[in-house]
Amino acid sequence: MTNGRNRQLRFRRCITEGEPVSMELFELGEEDIPTPGPGQFLVKTEALGTSPAQRAYLMGSASRFHPPLDPGEIMRGRGVGRITLSNHPDYAVGEAVCCSTGWQDYSVHQGDETGMVKTVQKIADPQDPLYLHLGTLGASAFAAYFGLLDIGQPRAGETVVVSAAGGGVGSIVAQIARIKGCRVIGIAGGSDKCAWVRDFIGADAAIDYKSEDLDARLGALCPDGIDIYFDNVGGETLNMALKHIALRGRAVICGLISTEYLDPPPPGPSNYFNLIYKRARMQGLVVWDYVDQFPEAEAELAAWYRAGDLKPTEYVLQGLTSAPDALQALFSGANRGITVVDMTGE
Amino acid sequence: MTNGRNRQLRFRRCITEGEPVSMELFELGEEDIPTPGPGQFLVKTEALGTSPAQRAYLMGSASRFHPPLDPGEIMRGRGVGRITLSNHPDYAVGEAVCCSTGWQDYSVHQGDETGMVKTVQKIADPQDPLYLHLGTLGASAFAAYFGLLDIGQPRAGETVVVSAAGGGVGSIVAQIARIKGCRVIGIAGGSDKCAWVRDFIGADAAIDYKSEDLDARLGALCPDGIDIYFDNVGGETLNMALKHIALRGRAVICGLISTEYLDPPPPGPSNYFNLIYKRARMQGLVVWDYVDQFPEAEAELAAWYRAGDLKPTEYVLQGLTSAPDALQALFSGANRGITVVDMTGE
Repeated sequence: MTNGRNRQLRFRRCITEGEPVSMELFELGEEDIPTPGPGQFLVKTEALGTSPAQRAYLMGSASRFHPPLDPGEIMRGRGVGRITLSNHPDYAVGEAVCCSTGWQDYSVHQGDETGMVKTVQKIADPQDPLYLHLGTLGASAFAAYFGLLDIGQPRAGETVVVSAAGGGVGSIVAQIARIKGCRVIGIAGGSDKCAWVRDFIGADAAIDYKSEDLDARLGALCPDGIDIYFDNVGGETLNMALKHIALRGRAVICGLISTEYLDPPPPGPSNYFNLIYKRARMQGLVVWDYVDQFPEAEAELAAWYRAGDLKPTEYVLQGLTSAPDALQALFSGANRGITVVDMTGE
Repeated sequence: MTNGRNRQLRFRRCITEGEPVSMELFELGEEDIPTPGPGQFLVKTEALGTSPAQRAYLMGSASRFHPPLDPGEIMRGRGVGRITLSNHPDYAVGEAVCCSTGWQDYSVHQGDETGMVKTVQKIADPQDPLYLHLGTLGASAFAAYFGLLDIGQPRAGETVVVSAAGGGVGSIVAQIARIKGCRVIGIAGGSDKCAWVRDFIGADAAIDYKSEDLDARLGALCPDGIDIYFDNVGGETLNMALKHIALRGRAVICGLISTEYLDPPPPGPSNYFNLIYKRARMQGLVVWDYVDQFPEAEAELAAWYRAGDLKPTEYVLQGLTSAPDALQALFSGANRGITVVDMTGE
């Protein structure tokens, strides 16, 4: 129950190096529910997503696509919700949308918001629970979908290796690769997470980078090399994958969570020269380039989901004030799949 | 005059670190001209090419595609020549070929030799001098041709940056990019070589990496970023080019002469993460993958050459015993364009 008030988590102070994200950094306040002006509409948040970029805001840094956030501002982030009031002819009460809700119960939108992560996306075929559209059927899944299919161009029988296979993007990449008939090897941290990658996600094998020799295991599991490496972490994992890249292999560079916020940046992968020897390709991905094709990705992912081929991988925390823990789970490794915050119970 | 003898340069001892390539390392001997057996033919060498891989042999190392060479063996290398005796129905006396002649006057071939660099290529339309087929119309030029056109996919008006623009591959890349209507910026070492890149090769600008700040100059010359970066050197030059890569830019990785023979390999380009931000692509090239298309490349390059659009860039040394100096010129920076050894005068 929100009692007709709009609860908000405001960013209070910058995080210090190595400090976990926690409620310490935020102040829970509440205001009146805002009233949409002409051409605007009101969205009631049902769930919040999480993104590594949010930690950059907490460091007082810009993300790839957004300016820094000042202390006192409402924490930035995307969520899903339903329209509860509307003065916009194209956005009707009851419609489900994914948009930049911020960490709060209610937000006002224009409909014509521009800029990559501000875009209001209508959810054409809303699933229950709606948070699936932040996860298995949401932007992380679209990154997996377009990165693997458009950049990676998988063929049945090929060997696909994905890092952070226990994470939001990786757990979907592994499943799409399986659906496409590829042999799938997931890299994840810890034996529990590796078991999840094998048993729940359905990877053919998993490598525990924390306890196993990644080089040796990649060599043993990929004697003919890695046809597609889907990178979510950068660093030495990427370097080892390039060492084992196959002839005409493709490395899809989606994220670099292991090194993204280090300054100065660490060295790049010394094995990049293998791109020559193996006539291989390394290519970056920004999912927002595909925004016009999101509906087709959503439709295909939803079909796989309904058929039981694509298992939902949401890691769900409950309630607005769990949002800091949800974000921290991306970095602590506590998450399985895509971490979301469900707000429908409060 | 060879007086009916076959002069040969045999590799005598391994080169020490930092030692220049010189005749010190070789022994000039001579033998009888070999007699081709059944199915074989004899090639009289008219010119020798040079390749960075040859320095690896002198270090006792394998190259990318060849095993090491033992002291006492004839120095390995490709050349062009004419068939002077033949017991092979498909190879007629008088035909011009490019093949693995080694550093000698005469060599015997099978015609069905396999393996990348062993292939005997017939020269369909021999130009005079024949050494053009080791240079402006030869394998280095084919690397430039397929790397720029097939991997780089240039469009008129785009900005192309090429490293080692004064070298064998780079000087052809710069010219093809100019022919295709691109804006061309060459990176080379020394003001003389930069002047040659601008005035002879026709680049729009040249950057002297020895005396100028590469980062600042790339920023000033490429305010909208680098659409295609053609890399022949690796190392910090590649790293800076990735820093300035344009949205949807392409980095063609052809060589890494600055770091190829370092063990352990130096760090990779830390700016590789820009591949994500710019949705850019980095892709390796091995020219021998295109061997079936060499005739079409040769025909188009020859047409540009005859029209005066593609200027010949051979740096010619005279005589078999100048071959060590020719090879050293690749590393000392003495060369302009493609270094070849002309043996028609002896």
